[in-house]
Amino acid sequence: MSAFLSRTRPPITYGITPPKLSTSPERRAEIAAVQSARIGQLPIDALVVYDLQDEASRTDALRPFPFVECIDPAEDAFGDLGAVPQRKIVYRGVSKRSREEMAAFFARVESEGGAAVLVGAPSRTAPVLMGLREAYAIRQELAPELPLGGVTIAERHAKSRDEHLRALSKVDVGCSFLVSQAVYSVTASKDLLSDLHYRCQDEGREPPILLVTLSPCGSAKTLEFMRWLGIDIPYWLENELLHSRDILQTSVDVCLRAFEELLDFARDKGIPLGCNVESVSLRREEIDASVEMVRRVVAITQRV
Amino acid sequence: MSAFLSRTRPPITYGITPPKLSTSPERRAEIAAVQSARIGQLPIDALVVYDLQDEASRTDALRPFPFVECIDPAEDAFGDLGAVPQRKIVYRGVSKRSREEMAAFFARVESEGGAAVLVGAPSRTAPVLMGLREAYAIRQELAPELPLGGVTIAERHAKSRDEHLRALSKVDVGCSFLVSQAVYSVTASKDLLSDLHYRCQDEGREPPILLVTLSPCGSAKTLEFMRWLGIDIPYWLENELLHSRDILQTSVDVCLRAFEELLDFARDKGIPLGCNVESVSLRREEIDASVEMVRRVVAITQRV
Repeated sequence: MSAFLSRTRPPITYGITPPKLSTSPERRAEIAAVQSARIGQLPIDALVVYDLQDEASRTDALRPFPFVECIDPAEDAFGDLGAVPQRKIVYRGVSKRSREEMAAFFARVESEGGAAVLVGAPSRTAPVLMGLREAYAIRQELAPELPLGGVTIAERHAKSRDEHLRALSKVDVGCSFLVSQAVYSVTASKDLLSDLHYRCQDEGREPPILLVTLSPCGSAKTLEFMRWLGIDIPYWLENELLHSRDILQTSVDVCLRAFEELLDFARDKGIPLGCNVESVSLRREEIDASVEMVRRVVAITQRV
Repeated sequence: MSAFLSRTRPPITYGITPPKLSTSPERRAEIAAVQSARIGQLPIDALVVYDLQDEASRTDALRPFPFVECIDPAEDAFGDLGAVPQRKIVYRGVSKRSREEMAAFFARVESEGGAAVLVGAPSRTAPVLMGLREAYAIRQELAPELPLGGVTIAERHAKSRDEHLRALSKVDVGCSFLVSQAVYSVTASKDLLSDLHYRCQDEGREPPILLVTLSPCGSAKTLEFMRWLGIDIPYWLENELLHSRDILQTSVDVCLRAFEELLDFARDKGIPLGCNVESVSLRREEIDASVEMVRRVVAITQRV
């Protein structure tokens, strides 16, 4: 089996959320046509389709945007967006799934030539039908050749200093790449990359591919939402964004600078770093910004 | 009066500590000869001579290196190092000084064409004969034309978010430039620069010249000492330094990268940033590293 993502040049992906469940079939078709045309043009290695979960159990703070149930990401990726030529990486929150649902999901992603990213419960207090460990075991049993990715969160590393071990344990159960949460703090990511590097060196193992997620931020409210999600935003950066005349463009610039810095840092250490550009807003300007971001990420990765 | 340091191109200084008070006159002369030859060759705008204070009152933690009383920095700068052709910036801890001592100090620095940096008590519990405010008032009264610098500490900003106001209040009492504590955390410095920028913008005033202090770190013990001094060192950076085969060279590289990043950040904001390279060790390799650092700082500031 050839690798799903390249280790020798930085892989680039583009991440979207499916439309709301309440979207009418006509509107869904419209959205899919526009998205397919846009995404088909992008110089990316794969399309990432997220599985939004209600994370209200994670914190007592009020969610700045209400949670809205979305269309099944596998259905979106392979149904509505079936015309998109790039391969698909489909997220799947496992906590509310049965064994049969997971089996059907793995079979579909595998038959479509995609990859799966399994996501556990958003908090320890959330009700759980299936744990992440069990989901990995089902995949190992039923679809051992299916490419897998895992989620990694640098912010967790600041608290428990074991996120590099979690990441490596995901590799041990079959993940060939990791995708970060949206990165606004270079420091938090370097903390994780540094520990990951020395651990791999000590164990004589290859570091996994890591996709750094960049997410344009178009408004003060989105910034607040990112904080709610647990994304670490340095004080100066929040200051810059809130004072900026064009918060969206400023966020694109700082995200790209962060990626460049992390790419340099990872290259020095032989960690295969790539980039996942998030486009989770429906606003025209934010979509345009994500497309610009992809093109600039490509330019950064092609520099010597 | 023309400005002591340039606002239009990044000023570069070199900071040293005077020899121990117990040094024999012969050894002092030797040290001075070697230092003068070295410093005279450096492409710097001024030589900084520190005034070491016993900071034991600042923390309960054990000081990794014992405090040793040093030769009077004005005596070192204008006496022993009188042959150094560059102008001198002389630090003066004021807390144990009388009015007469301060008056003599100001007169000497002014007559030698130097600049003074006044430093307050290391902590609120330290015994104080003279406060910083009183020392500034004496200078205003007796030597209003004497160029003044002030100390700024980005790490304080993380706690109280008012270091930019402290910095501007130093400008209000006559400081034309500020010198930072040794910088290992780009984030802490950006936090301060960002607030300083928007405050100056709001008040319609020019931001002060700020010298970013870079200090090569030659050993794990020096790293520990920096922490003791309150210098913020990001986790990843400590990790890199402790795993490095050549901690000194790694520290030089990361300091220069930090300076470059801060210079870009400050330029975008019109803050006149310069650099103060510290050479406070007597070890041959650390002195060589500081000289290399000066040359590389010059190269960075000359890039377009």
